[in-house]
Amino acid sequence: MKAWALLGAPKNQWPSNIKAKLLAAKKSKDLIIGVDRGALLLEELGLTADLAVGDFDSLQKDELERIESKVSDIRYSLPEKDLTDSELIMRCAFCDYQVSHLAILGATGGRLDHFMSNLLMVLKPEFNPFAEKIELIDQQNSIKFYNAGKHTIYQIPDYNYFGVVTLTAVQHLNIAGAKYSLADFNGDYPISFSSNEFLSEKKPLELSLKKGTVAVIQSKDIDRFQNI
Amino acid sequence: MKAWALLGAPKNQWPSNIKAKLLAAKKSKDLIIGVDRGALLLEELGLTADLAVGDFDSLQKDELERIESKVSDIRYSLPEKDLTDSELIMRCAFCDYQVSHLAILGATGGRLDHFMSNLLMVLKPEFNPFAEKIELIDQQNSIKFYNAGKHTIYQIPDYNYFGVVTLTAVQHLNIAGAKYSLADFNGDYPISFSSNEFLSEKKPLELSLKKGTVAVIQSKDIDRFQNI
Repeated sequence: MKAWALLGAPKNQWPSNIKAKLLAAKKSKDLIIGVDRGALLLEELGLTADLAVGDFDSLQKDELERIESKVSDIRYSLPEKDLTDSELIMRCAFCDYQVSHLAILGATGGRLDHFMSNLLMVLKPEFNPFAEKIELIDQQNSIKFYNAGKHTIYQIPDYNYFGVVTLTAVQHLNIAGAKYSLADFNGDYPISFSSNEFLSEKKPLELSLKKGTVAVIQSKDIDRFQNI
Repeated sequence: MKAWALLGAPKNQWPSNIKAKLLAAKKSKDLIIGVDRGALLLEELGLTADLAVGDFDSLQKDELERIESKVSDIRYSLPEKDLTDSELIMRCAFCDYQVSHLAILGATGGRLDHFMSNLLMVLKPEFNPFAEKIELIDQQNSIKFYNAGKHTIYQIPDYNYFGVVTLTAVQHLNIAGAKYSLADFNGDYPISFSSNEFLSEKKPLELSLKKGTVAVIQSKDIDRFQNI
């Protein structure tokens, strides 16, 4: 079973097909998770979350009551908590529901301290084993995570660019089968190798590293006038 | 002299007062930098860049000619370059123009490989000495960078939240004078301590670390219906 979590960042960074994506997921019996205000946003999209997580302090009383009356599994987090909401989702999704993958929507475009928490949570030892099962998705980016090993990565159709971001110190990082190669890179601090390109949709990128965790960001330009 | 650089990310993440901010900067004889498509966006805002940087491959021929006819200092970067456009700005601004501060606009909300490059460029040894002179600004976030030392940081009015993101391994990191304190934290990998709060606009946050570089992200919630 796959899980989809909707967080509360502004809608203007949502993938354009978010409603169809989530309705299809619901139909496939995937787990739908609403995080804080995301639980309400799911309602507005015509879906009820299977699981809601958060302190819900951004909701009005009647909004929270609506969520509480409809959602069967609600996990209340504490504001002074050790785990962020996203970390709590990971624990629920992977440990309690044993999901195979977790796609996170609504994590970008708002407060960047939140975004950075969502990006970096896979580095914590408790969650690092799940790193390769997580994807952050917005209207023009897909972020996946890779630990030590050899990885074959295919282009998402129409996503012409990719970047490899070393989130930790890395050893023996290689990028092959792309426009710009990287051979046996070792680094002590994070660096973003951005604006690389796949050679074709059929030719995958070969990524390998001996130590560390990297994020691979596939992205596309959007219509230059779309957001004006 | 202070410098302001406008990058090419979507306008929907711009600060709401960007035009007034840049016109005031121009009036104060600050250096105005247009980066790639940002040079054209400055024109649309009624300003001509003092310096334009980029490969300009996102511009039409007539658009580039307009920039070339108006901007007195243009630095052309190569697509297969060692430096990203933002790194080239830093070199021009700090080394050639000897500016005291660099505010970067239009760096968020678009391709996240670009954003990560802009966030992490201060870690490269060539640019790390300038880290504390740089600020990334969008409609609800301000990101500043701090190296080893003791730092007193005041709240930006109305920015109720802040996060401290360790971008590198850090030693002896302390956060005091805020809602949540952190004492003598040591870490080998990046982590985001998000959703912290200032005690008041008059009471500054005291941040110190013995080794490493951190980003301090001040942020505010925006009207929940603004982006719907």
